[in-house]
Amino acid sequence: MDYQVQSFSVKFEYRVYFTSAVFDLKNETLYSFLKERQVPQTVQKMLFVIDQAVADKHPRLKDDMIAWFNKYPVVQLVKEFLIIPGGEGAKNKPSLFDQVAEAVNLHGIDRHSYITAIGGGSILDLVGYVAAVSHRGINHIRIPTTVLSQNDSGIGVKNGINRFGKKNFLGTFAPPVAIFNDDLFLTTLDQRNWRAGIAEAVKVSLIKDAAFFDWIEMHSILLLNRDHDAMNYLIRHCAELHLQHIAGPDPFEKGSSRPLDFGHWSAHKLEQLTNFEVLHGEAVAMGIALDTMYSSLAGYLPKAKADRILQLLIKLGFEITHPLMQVRDQDSPVLQGLQEFREHLGGRLTIMLLTDIGAGKEVNEISTALVIRAAKELSRYNIQDPVRNE
Amino acid sequence: MDYQVQSFSVKFEYRVYFTSAVFDLKNETLYSFLKERQVPQTVQKMLFVIDQAVADKHPRLKDDMIAWFNKYPVVQLVKEFLIIPGGEGAKNKPSLFDQVAEAVNLHGIDRHSYITAIGGGSILDLVGYVAAVSHRGINHIRIPTTVLSQNDSGIGVKNGINRFGKKNFLGTFAPPVAIFNDDLFLTTLDQRNWRAGIAEAVKVSLIKDAAFFDWIEMHSILLLNRDHDAMNYLIRHCAELHLQHIAGPDPFEKGSSRPLDFGHWSAHKLEQLTNFEVLHGEAVAMGIALDTMYSSLAGYLPKAKADRILQLLIKLGFEITHPLMQVRDQDSPVLQGLQEFREHLGGRLTIMLLTDIGAGKEVNEISTALVIRAAKELSRYNIQDPVRNE
Repeated sequence: MDYQVQSFSVKFEYRVYFTSAVFDLKNETLYSFLKERQVPQTVQKMLFVIDQAVADKHPRLKDDMIAWFNKYPVVQLVKEFLIIPGGEGAKNKPSLFDQVAEAVNLHGIDRHSYITAIGGGSILDLVGYVAAVSHRGINHIRIPTTVLSQNDSGIGVKNGINRFGKKNFLGTFAPPVAIFNDDLFLTTLDQRNWRAGIAEAVKVSLIKDAAFFDWIEMHSILLLNRDHDAMNYLIRHCAELHLQHIAGPDPFEKGSSRPLDFGHWSAHKLEQLTNFEVLHGEAVAMGIALDTMYSSLAGYLPKAKADRILQLLIKLGFEITHPLMQVRDQDSPVLQGLQEFREHLGGRLTIMLLTDIGAGKEVNEISTALVIRAAKELSRYNIQDPVRNE
Repeated sequence: MDYQVQSFSVKFEYRVYFTSAVFDLKNETLYSFLKERQVPQTVQKMLFVIDQAVADKHPRLKDDMIAWFNKYPVVQLVKEFLIIPGGEGAKNKPSLFDQVAEAVNLHGIDRHSYITAIGGGSILDLVGYVAAVSHRGINHIRIPTTVLSQNDSGIGVKNGINRFGKKNFLGTFAPPVAIFNDDLFLTTLDQRNWRAGIAEAVKVSLIKDAAFFDWIEMHSILLLNRDHDAMNYLIRHCAELHLQHIAGPDPFEKGSSRPLDFGHWSAHKLEQLTNFEVLHGEAVAMGIALDTMYSSLAGYLPKAKADRILQLLIKLGFEITHPLMQVRDQDSPVLQGLQEFREHLGGRLTIMLLTDIGAGKEVNEISTALVIRAAKELSRYNIQDPVRNE
């Protein structure tokens, strides 16, 4: 065969900052980052897209930002802030993609300028996607405002929006240039959103770090009681584990293996089936419970370990199953999640199960009969969550 | 400052095949490629998107393809071929993006399956973009059918569609998994499209390879007379020069320098101003002429060398300027092309000029007065093209 091989590597680098009150006039974190990246003889602009809920809960935010950029005029602030509704809905409306892309065009945000998103995971996913495809990639900064986005989705390399009723059908792998995890935004989270992000920390501890699982167990009351230091440690350690994984052999997930998606095949489907009334973290807690119970019933994980995992989820106030996660037969809707999970990754079905706390094992087949039993078993232990059902 | 640095490299690799009649039953090129990439225990599908003009000129193509996949069932052929109109129009209609993405969804093309585009550069750009963002990147194969796409756009790492009246406003850097340059498709090109692609070969010779410029000069009659061997050599050598450049220090063009876009700032604008009536390669020939004349008037390039370049373009039958490329003052539309070029790249304006045949020099400023003189000078030498104006 007559062919030429084209081969090259591209280096990707970004920073994850941990700070408090990033737009406080005394806070120079963002300034020092932008200063380093100044390009001589060019006007670098910064366009902000802000989650409506964040703007509502922080009514002085915009004024603070304007004052901050007046003090630190390291880039040219676009004073028309784009405020858009957050939550999964932000990823469901193609018109929002258009709206953000139009703002990039209107304000002339070029490849040396910035588009910065302030909000939960959905806003970051949407804006990250627009940033990745505008001019084939403009600088993107994320300021995640939820536990979930600070310890997991916001610090990674993925973005996306939903299409054809499928989560993240459109998206790319494209790292932001920086993430600023600002713990001030956590203080205004409602209890559901505060707690939901803990589920991803439990998940990553289960597949990678038994000592972290112990730590979460020991600090579960502090975490629920909104202890600042405990949550900061949880976010930081969880973020570190995620970053380490991403920097591993397959940052852009070219293979079929995706260990960080432990518990996610049913969680993604449940979110969709409940029209996203169940939060991602809440669904992940249920997905973890299902795959933990399955691991136990399949003989991979000792029953005592499975119990300990379920107890932690319950102690954290998570419901461990949902009526729509109950499986009756092959045609139960939640089982479609397996097929969709396979299709999104491509290739063979690859599901992470547990062999121990802190240790996983990938399998390529899932028994419907065992999923039925696991779901049923979980419904016996479930405790209705007064926070979610209030 | 309290931050973590996340850093990793991602390797990209793809192949550029040179073949003839890729779907001839005796041709095993595609088979051997797909065979190597088979994933055990999975169904890998292949969805085709075909340029309407190619389908029209090769009425037996679809039957040949079906017969080929019957003989070589290495992937599962999706028998519903998606036929869409080619040319720049394909990149202007958001509905075509939706149509291709919907087909990906409908036929369950996952990340181990393939979407293959057969056509000119516009179809490849559109389908490459859909492939890059569907499921965050599915396997994409290109079968370029024009000189231009076989020696330049089709073998690179870029894709994109137009939005807000701007070329490639949306797009990504995402290599295909393979390109199959099939010279059979060249035989049915009309004379304009046959010739237009030669402009990119002239361009790359001017900035990188003086010997190649000599070769084009010596073979210009053969090339115009549609000599098969001459064109195959031109495409192959031009493709190699492009591939070498891409594998250099900045494959994803993170900097502001883009030497391969020599002559393109005005060419892109002219295409748009003429509503793409002037082909990309034709516009590039005029853009080369403009920047060559400018280089000479600015004192970078000896006049005799500039003359030689213009003579070659004229000998190849290209018009070297266009009424809409004439510049009267600062507000002339073609000058907007400079600003748009800067904005697309970001940062400082960086324009490649010539100091010799085979050697360029980047400048950060362009004098309007000199552009006016250069354009005017060119209009004195221009010969109307009977092919383009027929």
